[in-house]
Amino acid sequence: GGGGISCVLQDGNVFEKAGVNVSVVSGHLSEEAVQQMRSRGKTLKTKNGKLPFCAMGVSSVIHPKNPHVPTIHFNYRYFEIEEADGTKQWWFGGGTDLTPTYLNEEDAVHFHKTLKEACDQHNPELYPKYKKWCDDYFYIKHRGERRGIGGIFFDDLDSPSKEEAFQFVQSCAKAIVPCYVPIVKKHSRDSFTPEEKLWQQLRRGRYVEFNLVYDRGTKFGLATPGSRIESILMSLPLTARWQYMHTPPEKSREAEILEVLRNPKDWVH
Amino acid sequence: GGGGISCVLQDGNVFEKAGVNVSVVSGHLSEEAVQQMRSRGKTLKTKNGKLPFCAMGVSSVIHPKNPHVPTIHFNYRYFEIEEADGTKQWWFGGGTDLTPTYLNEEDAVHFHKTLKEACDQHNPELYPKYKKWCDDYFYIKHRGERRGIGGIFFDDLDSPSKEEAFQFVQSCAKAIVPCYVPIVKKHSRDSFTPEEKLWQQLRRGRYVEFNLVYDRGTKFGLATPGSRIESILMSLPLTARWQYMHTPPEKSREAEILEVLRNPKDWVH
Repeated sequence: GGGGISCVLQDGNVFEKAGVNVSVVSGHLSEEAVQQMRSRGKTLKTKNGKLPFCAMGVSSVIHPKNPHVPTIHFNYRYFEIEEADGTKQWWFGGGTDLTPTYLNEEDAVHFHKTLKEACDQHNPELYPKYKKWCDDYFYIKHRGERRGIGGIFFDDLDSPSKEEAFQFVQSCAKAIVPCYVPIVKKHSRDSFTPEEKLWQQLRRGRYVEFNLVYDRGTKFGLATPGSRIESILMSLPLTARWQYMHTPPEKSREAEILEVLRNPKDWVH
Repeated sequence: GGGGISCVLQDGNVFEKAGVNVSVVSGHLSEEAVQQMRSRGKTLKTKNGKLPFCAMGVSSVIHPKNPHVPTIHFNYRYFEIEEADGTKQWWFGGGTDLTPTYLNEEDAVHFHKTLKEACDQHNPELYPKYKKWCDDYFYIKHRGERRGIGGIFFDDLDSPSKEEAFQFVQSCAKAIVPCYVPIVKKHSRDSFTPEEKLWQQLRRGRYVEFNLVYDRGTKFGLATPGSRIESILMSLPLTARWQYMHTPPEKSREAEILEVLRNPKDWVH
């Protein structure tokens, strides 16, 4: 039961494709979903294999036109389940991450610094932990590359208290506009060459690879009968490209971003 | 051990991207691969979880530029394994299938008729069985659509004898040029509109979805450490597109092909 709202801007002046999904759903988790949570370390007691749940979240992906403006993705969600013995479990999850076509160190530092400040308000241990979690999660294993330059990512957050966890998630959500919009404003009128647009399209291909092959949310959605496919695949770019054996020349700007995707850096200390 | 050769034509006049892989490999199957074969119904006895194997095959995908020329894919392979007790098992697998952007009934009939004739030389039961297997295999579950208008597909073929199975596979392979090249010649100079090119790009997006989410060979390759990613992903189109909520108008030529992808037809009897 439940539902949601999807909103997509397509072929705009600044954004090639930008979408946001808001959803509130409840029902019974499938055995597959329960297994997935168990594999994350959660111990869940089902009643006849059934597990009542309630989930709500907001997620968004913004793919800009200009290759000098990075793609952003964020998702914040809240989950509640009721076990067979009546025990209620709840947790928050989410994150914000950036996928640039070209590396701009100043932008990378600004993005991470803004997220770090949001985390640090609550606990100085959060940013380093969630920054690493993000680098580990958005990993395209068959390429040996991360999808982008990361950000923060967390799941199963149920401490120190529900109120404090919610405060933390709100701080993360409030950091989205200040971490991203200044970068968009700075670069949306940058000039670019056809070669730069082509490199962007190849990186969009990698974005598709991550989302279809690895992303837990996408895989879960595609495997769930009755899910709204258009909302799930809203995250895919408008256009993408796959070229056989494309290898950027050494020391090029294309090689520079690849290096950072292969070996994630610490942008703030 | 072993290896292969990949050859790709990119950005040609007629073909946007066309590739062929030939490979001959041997070694020990991973536990994951053995499980996959067991789930297909094969009973395999491993020695300490190891299973020596030898496999060889040819595969190819051709994505033409012109939206009136369909994409073709074929793959023919031979597999040999040695069980713990020394028993050797062998089998052939493969198929040829067509993915048009627009339906051309004459072409669909020609394609299927040529494959049927190749099958009928050996056994009249093969074409109907392998035609259905193809429709079932190339199914994009989350879209409720097949990838294309099918063709033939088979696996675990180990009868009536190795020599006869090999003769059958050779007949299938020899049918590739006559089933496809006349269609290419007929349409490669057809004029097309930007709208038709756009629809082709959207269909290419579906091709990517099938290959990355469902195709057994691709999934197996991506999960195999040390596999050659560029050869595996050679099958992806040069360019693809995802548009939110794109729905062709009723009775349009776009709706016509969708109808056939949702409800496969028998092209020859």
